Amino acid sequence: MVDARKSSWLTLQMRTSEVFHLLRDGQPWTRAQLCEASGLARSTVTSRLDVLVKLGVVAPYGDGTSTGGRPPSLYALNPSARVVGAVALGATHAVAAVTDLAGTILGQTRERLDVAQGPATVLSWVAETVERLLLEADRAPADLAAVGLGVPGPVEHSTGRPTNPPIMPGWDRYDVPGTLGERLGVPVLVDNDVNIMALGERSTYLPEVDDLIFVKVATGIGAGIISGGSLQRGAHGTAGDLGHVRVTSGSGVICRCGNEGCLEAIAGGPAIAARLRDAGVPAETTGDVVELVRGGNLEAVREVRQAGRELGEVVATMANLINPSVVVIGGLLGGAGEHLMAGLREVVYQRSMPLATEHLSIVASVAGDRAGILGASAMAAEHVLSPEAIESAAANLTVSAAP
Amino acid sequence: MVDARKSSWLTLQMRTSEVFHLLRDGQPWTRAQLCEASGLARSTVTSRLDVLVKLGVVAPYGDGTSTGGRPPSLYALNPSARVVGAVALGATHAVAAVTDLAGTILGQTRERLDVAQGPATVLSWVAETVERLLLEADRAPADLAAVGLGVPGPVEHSTGRPTNPPIMPGWDRYDVPGTLGERLGVPVLVDNDVNIMALGERSTYLPEVDDLIFVKVATGIGAGIISGGSLQRGAHGTAGDLGHVRVTSGSGVICRCGNEGCLEAIAGGPAIAARLRDAGVPAETTGDVVELVRGGNLEAVREVRQAGRELGEVVATMANLINPSVVVIGGLLGGAGEHLMAGLREVVYQRSMPLATEHLSIVASVAGDRAGILGASAMAAEHVLSPEAIESAAANLTVSAAP
Repeated sequence: MVDARKSSWLTLQMRTSEVFHLLRDGQPWTRAQLCEASGLARSTVTSRLDVLVKLGVVAPYGDGTSTGGRPPSLYALNPSARVVGAVALGATHAVAAVTDLAGTILGQTRERLDVAQGPATVLSWVAETVERLLLEADRAPADLAAVGLGVPGPVEHSTGRPTNPPIMPGWDRYDVPGTLGERLGVPVLVDNDVNIMALGERSTYLPEVDDLIFVKVATGIGAGIISGGSLQRGAHGTAGDLGHVRVTSGSGVICRCGNEGCLEAIAGGPAIAARLRDAGVPAETTGDVVELVRGGNLEAVREVRQAGRELGEVVATMANLINPSVVVIGGLLGGAGEHLMAGLREVVYQRSMPLATEHLSIVASVAGDRAGILGASAMAAEHVLSPEAIESAAANLTVSAAP
Repeated sequence: MVDARKSSWLTLQMRTSEVFHLLRDGQPWTRAQLCEASGLARSTVTSRLDVLVKLGVVAPYGDGTSTGGRPPSLYALNPSARVVGAVALGATHAVAAVTDLAGTILGQTRERLDVAQGPATVLSWVAETVERLLLEADRAPADLAAVGLGVPGPVEHSTGRPTNPPIMPGWDRYDVPGTLGERLGVPVLVDNDVNIMALGERSTYLPEVDDLIFVKVATGIGAGIISGGSLQRGAHGTAGDLGHVRVTSGSGVICRCGNEGCLEAIAGGPAIAARLRDAGVPAETTGDVVELVRGGNLEAVREVRQAGRELGEVVATMANLINPSVVVIGGLLGGAGEHLMAGLREVVYQRSMPLATEHLSIVASVAGDRAGILGASAMAAEHVLSPEAIESAAANLTVSAAP
């Protein structure tokens, strides 16, 4: 009951955000439209617009520079008012960026960084890199409004703490938002890397799609699930773990997780590389496999196409169970041309129920290796532009303006 | 943009429901608590309470019959103010009930009814039965506030129209809410039968669980998925279709859907009955299988336990992909004692990732054959008590009270 009362209280206190909520669509609005849509009096809308313009998140639009002394007639969201840090940590690499509130990348960097060095080292790098990128983008430290961070493991999203992440020693239950937030002085949002890739693909390229699954195919295989317009993290943040689903051809293949026949042990990059070596083709890493496919090596093409079929079996299951309208294939192997997609489509359209695939699109990621930072940016911007954050900023403005 | 503007408008108009929202928790509230939690003035809370009491959905609570002439100090939701019709249609049977707004069953009936007779015949039966149950429960026709209806096929929930339902000839795209709503004069909510079973189990027995999958195991096999507190219907209403997921032992078994190795073709009631007949045990229907198991027939026990293992393979996949905290097993076979559950648990705990099963409970349905009507009731009551419905009722009250 406490939570319900608290959230009701928040809902009811959101007076400034009632107007801001309308402007979040990014379109220019006239004052009259805002009055009509909000049901608020013109004087109320005017005073709320004043607050939002002072906060910088809304600005006069188009003919706002009218010379006749009349107030500007159009207002719109001002995405460049603030910036966010957007960081995607992988097992051995990290990508960091600063973006505006609409996800426009103002600067980015990609570096080798081993997540197994532990949170102290890695989060120091994150903080320093965001500060450096801010400087290079000519933005003041005060312009930073939040940081979004993706990590390669399950996360309890409400607290931002990783939970039993298998490849992140030292990070279990670590207070990532607390540590990084104290260092940078802004809210920090944390989620699993594939979840933020799903967010990034959707926010940038598929904003109209409410039921989307983003599948990352690389050394590991995982998925971010958006259903009914919301990211579905599951009860303990591990939803989308398709790498350890058993596939029918998997008998006798033991996975690093200890189980038999897991998809990842058959269709992940290292498994493909191992089969290529058995066939006399030198390949060690997922990157090697991608290079071979791009170079037209027939054995590699054949193996990747077969991996697509194995993946297709699990994606067909996901289509039946979750009924998405779009499945996006990303990750290093997902970007290796049409061979993986061809094998995948072959099996999905054969295996899924007609009702589940009648309107199902299977597409390659457009965001590619920017999916992670675009999603981290979207997650951070969503927080900055949330009604709660706007109300809180408006309240601070009022307090600091008081005599 | 139109939708966003429209929903904002609705949000802003919800003045009476701001108070009602708090009372929906079912707990008694004092006027002072309502003022504090809503941030509204005492006079505003008082006038809104007046409206809600006139609507009947809120009533004085406990010492409300104070004799001192003072107004009652406690208010609470009044679930018996109105009733809803709750109907669950199966392939060959239908269960109908009238309940109060808290799901208390005031009367119910179960009859043979073939859904393949088509919507005109079946919906007439629904209307007559709800009217009869109302009468038998001594409630006036005007007390009926809404009807919830579950049907054995996929439904486009927003319009209440079945979409390509395989076992419901004549129902495709049929305007169920329009037809039934016109006949009964109340809003009609329609959803897939397994979805409402999930709602029924949760609303009645597991209200605190936000991530729950209800699996119905009978002649067909299907699931209703609740994630993050919301029913997940998927892009086209077919989410939860686990009956046609391929299982590893399924080679060579052709399903009625035309594919090979589907779970339903191996673990559904008719498949078990067929294997029993092959072994010389007479069994035709799912009901026969259940009877044999209850009677201790060893062959039937063995087959049902093995069906549990096959089901377990797909439930393990669901646990990895969706990460629920509770999986509820219902349906006719689900109610056949511990043998199915034993096979199921054996495989799920072996196959799923530890992170996905560490806090996973697998339980038998408590709602049993009432899951459908309890869910239909919850769906209808949710609609009746929604902010939009309360606002609309309050507006009508004001209009009809005008001179």
